[in-house]
Amino acid sequence: MFTLEVRDHVMIAHSFRGEIFGPAQGLHGATYVVDAAFMTEELDNNGLVVDIGRAHDVLKTVLAALNYKNLDDLPQFAGTNTTTEFLAKHIHDRLAQAARLGTLGRDAGAISAIRVTLAESHVARATFEGPLR
Amino acid sequence: MFTLEVRDHVMIAHSFRGEIFGPAQGLHGATYVVDAAFMTEELDNNGLVVDIGRAHDVLKTVLAALNYKNLDDLPQFAGTNTTTEFLAKHIHDRLAQAARLGTLGRDAGAISAIRVTLAESHVARATFEGPLR
Amino acid sequence: MFTLEVRDHVMIAHSFRGEIFGPAQGLHGATYVVDAAFMTEELDNNGLVVDIGRAHDVLKTVLAALNYKNLDDLPQFAGTNTTTEFLAKHIHDRLAQAARLGTLGRDAGAISAIRVTLAESHVARATFEGPLR
Amino acid sequence: MFTLEVRDHVMIAHSFRGEIFGPAQGLHGATYVVDAAFMTEELDNNGLVVDIGRAHDVLKTVLAALNYKNLDDLPQFAGTNTTTEFLAKHIHDRLAQAARLGTLGRDAGAISAIRVTLAESHVARATFEGPLR
Amino acid sequence: MFTLEVRDHVMIAHSFRGEIFGPAQGLHGATYVVDAAFMTEELDNNGLVVDIGRAHDVLKTVLAALNYKNLDDLPQFAGTNTTTEFLAKHIHDRLAQAARLGTLGRDAGAISAIRVTLAESHVARATFEGPLR
Amino acid sequence: MFTLEVRDHVMIAHSFRGEIFGPAQGLHGATYVVDAAFMTEELDNNGLVVDIGRAHDVLKTVLAALNYKNLDDLPQFAGTNTTTEFLAKHIHDRLAQAARLGTLGRDAGAISAIRVTLAESHVARATFEGPLR
Repeated sequence: MFTLEVRDHVMIAHSFRGEIFGPAQGLHGATYVVDAAFMTEELDNNGLVVDIGRAHDVLKTVLAALNYKNLDDLPQFAGTNTTTEFLAKHIHDRLAQAARLGTLGRDAGAISAIRVTLAESHVARATFEGPLR
Repeated sequence: MFTLEVRDHVMIAHSFRGEIFGPAQGLHGATYVVDAAFMTEELDNNGLVVDIGRAHDVLKTVLAALNYKNLDDLPQFAGTNTTTEFLAKHIHDRLAQAARLGTLGRDAGAISAIRVTLAESHVARATFEGPLR
Repeated sequence: MFTLEVRDHVMIAHSFRGEIFGPAQGLHGATYVVDAAFMTEELDNNGLVVDIGRAHDVLKTVLAALNYKNLDDLPQFAGTNTTTEFLAKHIHDRLAQAARLGTLGRDAGAISAIRVTLAESHVARATFEGPLR
Repeated sequence: MFTLEVRDHVMIAHSFRGEIFGPAQGLHGATYVVDAAFMTEELDNNGLVVDIGRAHDVLKTVLAALNYKNLDDLPQFAGTNTTTEFLAKHIHDRLAQAARLGTLGRDAGAISAIRVTLAESHVARATFEGPLR
Repeated sequence: MFTLEVRDHVMIAHSFRGEIFGPAQGLHGATYVVDAAFMTEELDNNGLVVDIGRAHDVLKTVLAALNYKNLDDLPQFAGTNTTTEFLAKHIHDRLAQAARLGTLGRDAGAISAIRVTLAESHVARATFEGPLR
Repeated sequence: MFTLEVRDHVMIAHSFRGEIFGPAQGLHGATYVVDAAFMTEELDNNGLVVDIGRAHDVLKTVLAALNYKNLDDLPQFAGTNTTTEFLAKHIHDRLAQAARLGTLGRDAGAISAIRVTLAESHVARATFEGPLR
């Protein structure tokens, strides 16, 4: 199994509902350093999983919809705790959608899985990994 | 699959028995930077794998039993080489025990696996991963 | 010159005023990974710059006043852009105050300088360094 | 599952053929920081996956065949784009060969898989993982 | 003293002349992870050392002249060993030139020094720091 | 000012005397990831601060005297707390001695300062920097 992984970041504000979150119930924020990994069984004719430039571009486009936003204000997240693990899946799903549309420049059928890791600090991170097909 | 991973560290002394260890047969020590990863298929009602604060607390409690110790002196390790890979499994087993007891604040049945990684330096690390159920 | 440096982090929301900030004029947030460095010409009788446990505690106390907050709501920052470099100096000044009060457990006269570095992502960070005396 | 992972690096020149590579069609180069991970179900009698010293030595030997070379000049790579993902598999295959020859000091049958990760920068890396048997 | 530091990278080929370089006399290459740090005594009216977006842009522009190149082919480096430390100063000088031209969006007189660090691997890096005025 | 910095590591056991050390009064240990930085005003005729291979070798030799040792047993440290900051200066002094003897392959008069940083974990490190002349 081959994996190609690219890194970018996003800076957002949000708050959480639920006593378990303690002080994180207040409006605060986070930088997420985001690693997006694309997996294939075989390389393409160029010797690639996917083009690294395209992978960076697709990740940047997905993150742009969140970057410098207060996630509490975004309709698609209404009634949802935008935890690190939730956002890992959210970004995964957007990347999977882009992959299925061919935006990565490779047949989506060739990409077996996508894994997204969000580091919220030097001591905590969350990952979502799912098959593409 | 969702993963939530937290980091802490522990500083111990120990020695190894066996010619293969060369100079590491002498009493020496290590800092292990420890990553504990908890995996679930579904997030809970709060949008969490496990509460990150509880994950940090449980890891700290498990490491406290080793921290600032000479592992050669601990009865539970008598006759054992406390290698990095051995300790990864040891810490894994203690975390699994805590998870089964509900200490992580989530039904143990929901946690599918635990992975523990110990970095002993910038150039070497060991991991143990096992299913919880 | 000896330096002892400890790391912690803080997660905040804020917004900036001024066209130069572009989309960062919106309410967003950041995780700052904070390194606090204390400098001395001579070690104390225990062989320390300052006690590492106390350094961690003092840094945590200073960060607690900001952690999980919307900095736009804090009176002391009214009318101020709480940029990464501004916050580096703000945290520096609070640490210097603690040092002068003896909270670090060492005579403030022995600490020649304090340096605070805030990494806001894997590609950007800011530092403020100033003499203590 | 136990994993033991060691790190080294290699510095090479190469060029790529294909319009998709843009400016990387020119002769350029890379430092690859290489992580080689060896996986076993059970530790050996010493409490090891493989001896960490041997793992470092085998990795260094494999990388020496590439280090400070222009990969475009190496006959074994003629007609091939030596992309990061391609090289991850190349190094994997050499390590697997060494494992089968017993160079790691452990019965190859005990090593279930090998994973090789090449970081080409702070924002991109590729991995190849395959079973040994 | 305030410092604002941004990170990017560049991938180049080159060779060295001189027996001291051993195998590095052959054509090889490197990824340099480049940190550019700008220092000021006072923040500007926006609370900035320099605008972080502009700092990233200026660094990217300076690196673009080297990226994906064989440095042995560039006339400005003829007869020169393009070592990591040499390149740190080269990039420093280009950044200083940009600063003097006002490209960073701040009066060059306000920037007291520039420091450039090139990490060539996880175990070696070089820095050049010089005053701007 | 040019700086060339190389990294290695050392694994030791030791204990501390003094109530301030709390549980660290017990025999424990540490991995220190060690960065040794050499500073010069001018590069040599090869374009170097010092040869990177020699710098790595000299650092390895200095660390070998400590590696896999219980520092409590070494006569030169009798009656001394071998804290991280103390060890940073100890290693600095050994490197300075090597530099003065010409082991780095460059006239000691050309090296203006040496800085040694020991990271004892992902959240704490100590540095000693001193002039060579």
